[in-house]
Amino acid sequence: MKLLRYGPVGQEKPGMLDADGNIRSLVGKIDDVSGANLSAAKIAELQALDPSSLELVDGSVRVGSCLGDITNLICIGLNFADHAAETGNPIPKTPVMFAKHTSTVTGPNDDIPLINGSDRSDWEVELGVVIGENCTKVSEEDAMDYVAGFFTANDVSERRLQKGEAGQWYHGKSPDNYAPIGPWVVTKDEVGDFNNLGMQCVISGTTRQNGNSKTMIFTVPQLVSYISQSTTLKAGDAILTGTPPGVGVGHDPMVFLKSGDEMVTAIDKLGEQRNKIV
Amino acid sequence: MKLLRYGPVGQEKPGMLDADGNIRSLVGKIDDVSGANLSAAKIAELQALDPSSLELVDGSVRVGSCLGDITNLICIGLNFADHAAETGNPIPKTPVMFAKHTSTVTGPNDDIPLINGSDRSDWEVELGVVIGENCTKVSEEDAMDYVAGFFTANDVSERRLQKGEAGQWYHGKSPDNYAPIGPWVVTKDEVGDFNNLGMQCVISGTTRQNGNSKTMIFTVPQLVSYISQSTTLKAGDAILTGTPPGVGVGHDPMVFLKSGDEMVTAIDKLGEQRNKIV
Repeated sequence: MKLLRYGPVGQEKPGMLDADGNIRSLVGKIDDVSGANLSAAKIAELQALDPSSLELVDGSVRVGSCLGDITNLICIGLNFADHAAETGNPIPKTPVMFAKHTSTVTGPNDDIPLINGSDRSDWEVELGVVIGENCTKVSEEDAMDYVAGFFTANDVSERRLQKGEAGQWYHGKSPDNYAPIGPWVVTKDEVGDFNNLGMQCVISGTTRQNGNSKTMIFTVPQLVSYISQSTTLKAGDAILTGTPPGVGVGHDPMVFLKSGDEMVTAIDKLGEQRNKIV
Repeated sequence: MKLLRYGPVGQEKPGMLDADGNIRSLVGKIDDVSGANLSAAKIAELQALDPSSLELVDGSVRVGSCLGDITNLICIGLNFADHAAETGNPIPKTPVMFAKHTSTVTGPNDDIPLINGSDRSDWEVELGVVIGENCTKVSEEDAMDYVAGFFTANDVSERRLQKGEAGQWYHGKSPDNYAPIGPWVVTKDEVGDFNNLGMQCVISGTTRQNGNSKTMIFTVPQLVSYISQSTTLKAGDAILTGTPPGVGVGHDPMVFLKSGDEMVTAIDKLGEQRNKIV
């Protein structure tokens, strides 16, 4: 099942994509694609609906970020060995964890304004994971019971701010609209093998990243289990699980986003984003 | 005005403290001490209520964390020059920003369980700030218009995890219940001069921190203005603004929290926390 949000910024309504690729409204069924609405029981309820019984939405509508009210936006750094190498970092022995502010969240086709004076804003295609039920100290074996689904994400990063004071990445990871997510959350049953998904990022026609989730150092169940040993993951938390090689800061010479660029971010089975940099 | 939350964990109700120190219920007036309920207009409405007209709450009730549904829990590191020195870090030229997961939030008198095997959990009394209205690119002069109030906080930190992979602090700052906040949010009009508040942390009878907000490197309006240049602060976001010297990792030999300790955290005008470490 593909869950999405449609309508103007800040007024998005919940919906789903039917088998013909049309948007169907879920208004009256759930209040948003968020939190407790992503539990296994709730998703089973939604999957039992007959899509043809749901209001058909005009296909020209804006598609918003695929999640509302994200409670925590957690990121994993350096989770591909070849990406760690291109950024001059050692391969981590345990997951590198940091966060983005939720003001970064934006729609899959929205314009992304470069922050004032940024000449080092960079792309990072990432497999997004959304937690469906609160999750404390789970094993790797049980971890997927707490995952609702997956989505395409881009962890856009301002590299000067990221390398700022005391080496903390949060500031450079948190400019407004630096996290397009969507177009939809694909429930885990529909994704199937999440350890073999092609991941691409194409900047103004040039393929910059062309990776696969199979080369992640820590898999999704390993990450969920690891984080949950110290920190209760909440329904509605999202995890961006790291980027394959090919980021701008890894090029020689380095290359970064500039106004007018089109950034296309895609993951197999999860759909494509098309953001204009402005 | 002092806003608080009372009742069992996860079922807290909104309330206020009256002039006699009694808890009065705000049920029916606001749904929680959170987000849009902290706007200037909403606080003015609450201040116009006659406390004696509000239901009196039994004083033996548990007082919960002073904020519900925190949207982002932002922290400022090394914001006291003498604390930067004791941790071996240079004095920052711009604010050091990182985050805590919101599963850290706990009540001012709740037990704090040390995470599995932690022998380096440390205290950090901090002045907490809550944002009352969304705030983008504000000047220092206007920044306080967006602040609703202040609260006592302790940014409890696990130092081994904090110094983990790639130097990112998020993991070590994010164990469950490692952020007691409260007992109440004190609105900014009642606090007055927030640049001269004594700040103490006492561990099992020994005063470990005894500082004052007047020695902060970056003041509250400077921090709000700085963050908002790149990242829209949201109503309901909380900022922990850094700790004065005296943390455990700064002692020689180092000293850390152990099971059985009582941690008393207090800030002038904002009230006191009393957490047992278990």
